Amino acid sequence: MIKVGVIGSTGYAGQQLVWLLNNHKNVEIVFLSSHSYANKAYTKVYPQYRQFNENICIDMESALSKLDDIDLLFLALPHGKTFEITKKAIDKNVRVIDLSADLRLKSQSEYEKWYKLRHKLPKEIKNAVYGLCELNREKIKTTKLLANPGCYPTASILSLAPLVFNKLIEPSSIIIDAKSGVSGAGRKANLSTLYGECNESLKAYKVSSHRHTPEIEQELSKFTDKDITLSFTPHLVPMNRGILATSYAKLTKKVNEEDIFNLYNKFYKDEYFIRIIKDLPETRFVKGTNICDISLRVDIRTKRVIIVSAIDNLIKGAAGQAVQNMNIMFDFNENEGLNLLSMLP
Amino acid sequence: MIKVGVIGSTGYAGQQLVWLLNNHKNVEIVFLSSHSYANKAYTKVYPQYRQFNENICIDMESALSKLDDIDLLFLALPHGKTFEITKKAIDKNVRVIDLSADLRLKSQSEYEKWYKLRHKLPKEIKNAVYGLCELNREKIKTTKLLANPGCYPTASILSLAPLVFNKLIEPSSIIIDAKSGVSGAGRKANLSTLYGECNESLKAYKVSSHRHTPEIEQELSKFTDKDITLSFTPHLVPMNRGILATSYAKLTKKVNEEDIFNLYNKFYKDEYFIRIIKDLPETRFVKGTNICDISLRVDIRTKRVIIVSAIDNLIKGAAGQAVQNMNIMFDFNENEGLNLLSMLP
Amino acid sequence: MIKVGVIGSTGYAGQQLVWLLNNHKNVEIVFLSSHSYANKAYTKVYPQYRQFNENICIDMESALSKLDDIDLLFLALPHGKTFEITKKAIDKNVRVIDLSADLRLKSQSEYEKWYKLRHKLPKEIKNAVYGLCELNREKIKTTKLLANPGCYPTASILSLAPLVFNKLIEPSSIIIDAKSGVSGAGRKANLSTLYGECNESLKAYKVSSHRHTPEIEQELSKFTDKDITLSFTPHLVPMNRGILATSYAKLTKKVNEEDIFNLYNKFYKDEYFIRIIKDLPETRFVKGTNICDISLRVDIRTKRVIIVSAIDNLIKGAAGQAVQNMNIMFDFNENEGLNLLSMLP
Amino acid sequence: MIKVGVIGSTGYAGQQLVWLLNNHKNVEIVFLSSHSYANKAYTKVYPQYRQFNENICIDMESALSKLDDIDLLFLALPHGKTFEITKKAIDKNVRVIDLSADLRLKSQSEYEKWYKLRHKLPKEIKNAVYGLCELNREKIKTTKLLANPGCYPTASILSLAPLVFNKLIEPSSIIIDAKSGVSGAGRKANLSTLYGECNESLKAYKVSSHRHTPEIEQELSKFTDKDITLSFTPHLVPMNRGILATSYAKLTKKVNEEDIFNLYNKFYKDEYFIRIIKDLPETRFVKGTNICDISLRVDIRTKRVIIVSAIDNLIKGAAGQAVQNMNIMFDFNENEGLNLLSMLP
Repeated sequence: MIKVGVIGSTGYAGQQLVWLLNNHKNVEIVFLSSHSYANKAYTKVYPQYRQFNENICIDMESALSKLDDIDLLFLALPHGKTFEITKKAIDKNVRVIDLSADLRLKSQSEYEKWYKLRHKLPKEIKNAVYGLCELNREKIKTTKLLANPGCYPTASILSLAPLVFNKLIEPSSIIIDAKSGVSGAGRKANLSTLYGECNESLKAYKVSSHRHTPEIEQELSKFTDKDITLSFTPHLVPMNRGILATSYAKLTKKVNEEDIFNLYNKFYKDEYFIRIIKDLPETRFVKGTNICDISLRVDIRTKRVIIVSAIDNLIKGAAGQAVQNMNIMFDFNENEGLNLLSMLP
Repeated sequence: MIKVGVIGSTGYAGQQLVWLLNNHKNVEIVFLSSHSYANKAYTKVYPQYRQFNENICIDMESALSKLDDIDLLFLALPHGKTFEITKKAIDKNVRVIDLSADLRLKSQSEYEKWYKLRHKLPKEIKNAVYGLCELNREKIKTTKLLANPGCYPTASILSLAPLVFNKLIEPSSIIIDAKSGVSGAGRKANLSTLYGECNESLKAYKVSSHRHTPEIEQELSKFTDKDITLSFTPHLVPMNRGILATSYAKLTKKVNEEDIFNLYNKFYKDEYFIRIIKDLPETRFVKGTNICDISLRVDIRTKRVIIVSAIDNLIKGAAGQAVQNMNIMFDFNENEGLNLLSMLP
Repeated sequence: MIKVGVIGSTGYAGQQLVWLLNNHKNVEIVFLSSHSYANKAYTKVYPQYRQFNENICIDMESALSKLDDIDLLFLALPHGKTFEITKKAIDKNVRVIDLSADLRLKSQSEYEKWYKLRHKLPKEIKNAVYGLCELNREKIKTTKLLANPGCYPTASILSLAPLVFNKLIEPSSIIIDAKSGVSGAGRKANLSTLYGECNESLKAYKVSSHRHTPEIEQELSKFTDKDITLSFTPHLVPMNRGILATSYAKLTKKVNEEDIFNLYNKFYKDEYFIRIIKDLPETRFVKGTNICDISLRVDIRTKRVIIVSAIDNLIKGAAGQAVQNMNIMFDFNENEGLNLLSMLP
Repeated sequence: MIKVGVIGSTGYAGQQLVWLLNNHKNVEIVFLSSHSYANKAYTKVYPQYRQFNENICIDMESALSKLDDIDLLFLALPHGKTFEITKKAIDKNVRVIDLSADLRLKSQSEYEKWYKLRHKLPKEIKNAVYGLCELNREKIKTTKLLANPGCYPTASILSLAPLVFNKLIEPSSIIIDAKSGVSGAGRKANLSTLYGECNESLKAYKVSSHRHTPEIEQELSKFTDKDITLSFTPHLVPMNRGILATSYAKLTKKVNEEDIFNLYNKFYKDEYFIRIIKDLPETRFVKGTNICDISLRVDIRTKRVIIVSAIDNLIKGAAGQAVQNMNIMFDFNENEGLNLLSMLP
């Protein structure tokens, strides 16, 4: 049993994390912190927790004073807001899982270019481990500072890594066309995410300029000897949850579909949360789970391979992967608290 | 550990039942039966079960031949289709939980009037116990034949029982205006439940003629000395799950809101699945759970009380209550496998 | 051809009004005013107007300076914000159609009780005509000050007026259970109307305390000799548009369904925007139109009549009725610019 | 005023066509034909047409007998079902607008390969004109046999033609990732388009095998000297209407975004239904209209151009373009009956 605190517990990702931790048999929640709802009952913000969680949200200052009481700190804050608290946790020797983007990019200058703000913990960047569990498990085990991957990068990297690693595709040909449910935009009172503005509509946004692009490039580049530059386009879809990533790449040689399936199965052998499937993924089949479904098609007409992956953006794309990382870091069963089957319809 | 079979396992209620049983620590699923998908893998119908359930659906005949292997049979069939299988289960001394309407009404003639078909097990009607757990727990414990309540009746009866029992409302004044998500219409290829026909629209249906009406009247009448006749109107709402029942009744005397809240709290004292709340219920807060949220308002202008209750139609309104009934019948913890917290958004 | 100005043109009702006026052959739009978007192109707020409307939004002050240039002023402001501008329009002899609630209630004290603010134009209350077109056409023709009805009152009053007028129901027995799409909550950056908070959920709100209640009571009371007090419950439904009102009342005498249908047909004879139909209304069949569909059922078991009506909350419930009122006031064809057929799916 | 008949009038595209024709001042509808609803009132199928259209659907045989009474026949049938009726119309010298795929592909063998059925009018293929209005206007004017484009091809071809024509992209690099609302799947009682199966989910389908692929390739190839082979992936999105096509291609030379915008503006100069916009398109802004919104971004990192286009799949993608074609063929104003502004929200 470990003791944990959650800072940023009332955003959608933070709440999903509380939902998972609340039901995790090796975890005791010591505190839930919230900037907007300090001193309010968690059930005032999320009434469904009545009789499940009686915490009162505390503010950042109180959270800091409780660092000595915990083994692990989860940060579910916007980027740029974590530096001070992360520093204090490090000083206190508390392990940190940071769901924000602040420790994901290994290059300070790339961070500052894409996020347009100064990075205040440049020395910690190299200590942080990028927590895409299936691809980085060994380093995750021992790290004190874990950078939890973004939602789009999780779906994208998992679906492309086997091909890059096996040099089956031309790296410069990669295009990722990704689609997300509205919860990805967070729980802020914005006009653009009002029901009346999102429902019954579809759009692309931040075309060729989304901040998850360098994160995907960085991690895929690890599987090859040259830097990968790719196209990434996010879209907003009128549904609560789910990411579907459709990726395209040119094959480097003639290879049939069956062989590529075999290669994926081998690459992800024994991975509990990766399902390589023949049918095309649908987000509903992973909704509410930590699973990533992946399928693919070889198009012999164009010599391309098209890979489709589906995750729940708030679980495998955020809070679920954070719990999976915790399980690895603390040597729990990796699927403890994550043995979730999607509920239909 | 008990052994169970499920007949009608591929409808929405049947699948929800499989979802719950799959995760229930006292249950082994011996067979899943399906008329439409006999001899097909359950994962062919519901791909999300990959790696969670490897059953092949069997047909009714095979199911019958396995009655000796099970302790409990769940029937998730349309009304009128259960008589033969129920009879055989009784003969084999297998306990039955019937999710259809076939054993709910105590009067054969009422059944035949509302359902417009002959009842073929009239002698078993009186042996069947109406399984609204919170109101009928003692009888449920020992029954061999359980009639699992309908979704609308569950939300309606739970919200009105304390008032009828305490004689605080005029029985003839009761009006129930209920609203359901589309999954309540089942998983059949009908024009009327196509996405394009339901989405972005709202309607009332079967006004003053819905078959759940006599079921609600029968059960509420048990709390008083005269037969209750009431108005019940169902509506179809563009969402997957959830029932909200808004009920109206004339108060028999002057009483303040606080007193009625107290009375509800007393009536449902220690009930794990009933939450009496001050804020008005929203279906999202009970989605994916076996909980019924209830609140109320006294309108002094009209001397009425308005009660609002919310359930998940497929869980507390069907499969979850079936599992709760099983837990009671087999003396498991009543919330075993049902300790579910709704996932938002 | 008349000249009009619209104040509050960028809210959902205001925009719907612009949409209708833009296509009205007797109208020239002189200005669009907006508090939040002053000096911005209308197409910046609503990009679909590109090539349809090239207006730049002006602020209130500029709008006031243009009162001399118009024949009619539409106000689509929140309640409490109209007093000053209405006063100035009256002084300039400009006719006013006010879509807010500020002139709907005939009793200053009722207004102040329900809206919890001082009414600053108490003398104008009696001059204002309540613009439910079908019921008040003669007075509308000549008024200079028109109070455009609320969305819920429009659906409710139209569906109950024939019964009250014919003394077929007990006034004290009236219960209106109404359901609205999310656009009814307006276009404000509120947490409660975020996509993630409304989608896939259903709730009742302001039970027995909604401000449209006295408006419905006031107008229905005109058809009888005593004041009507009734129950009104609004609900929020996950769809963009539409109101469905399900109303219940006790019949004063035995009467069959057919007779009541005849009575409705007679009451609304020759009304272009009222369709008395045998099938139950669905909001999709009136979406995007100025039509109110009405059907009913007599429940002989409970001696009640249940009436179901459907409108588009932004059209017949707001902007469409405002245009219909304009057509009556300026002696245009009553359905000019409103000859709209709903687009499915 | 011309006289028209519609065969297949009760599918979603057929109904959208009736909706448009009903309001077209140069058109008289002589008959509506429907296989499934012969001899039923059109209002029985689509109740919103009450008081707007009093037609009784007729069967195919009756339709054939009325060919002498019409100037133009619209076919809104599934592919493979048009051959006989088209032949008879040709024989009677009645002009035909065929919304099916039967006359779109110029190669009989391509048709038979992709549609897996014999083409029974091979000689008529070359007489048919592909009716993408903006690109083929001159030929449309005089044709007797018009092949109305598919929904995906309309959005795709319009967004890529200026680039192919100007040789700014490598033809072999084109990838089209398209997303459609559920109405694109038609109005058939299929399990896969039930509300409960589509809502809150997203999927790709027919990856690299969709029948609209050769149609897009054929039409884009006309703008260059070699055959284009491209990747096309359709997706199903939980909304009623709309197509968003996100297309990717490698630039053949260094060119800045502004120059490409200029080129698009020039290419589509004076086109009423094409809007080249700086902001990224959203389907809601073209919903209910015949407009195609197009924007683009140059990604200097990858030397690609990304083009995003949005249409209403049932209007510009089907019935609206059919009416636009009719307007061209009969020398009406090209936007007659199509001057539609999207209604929000």
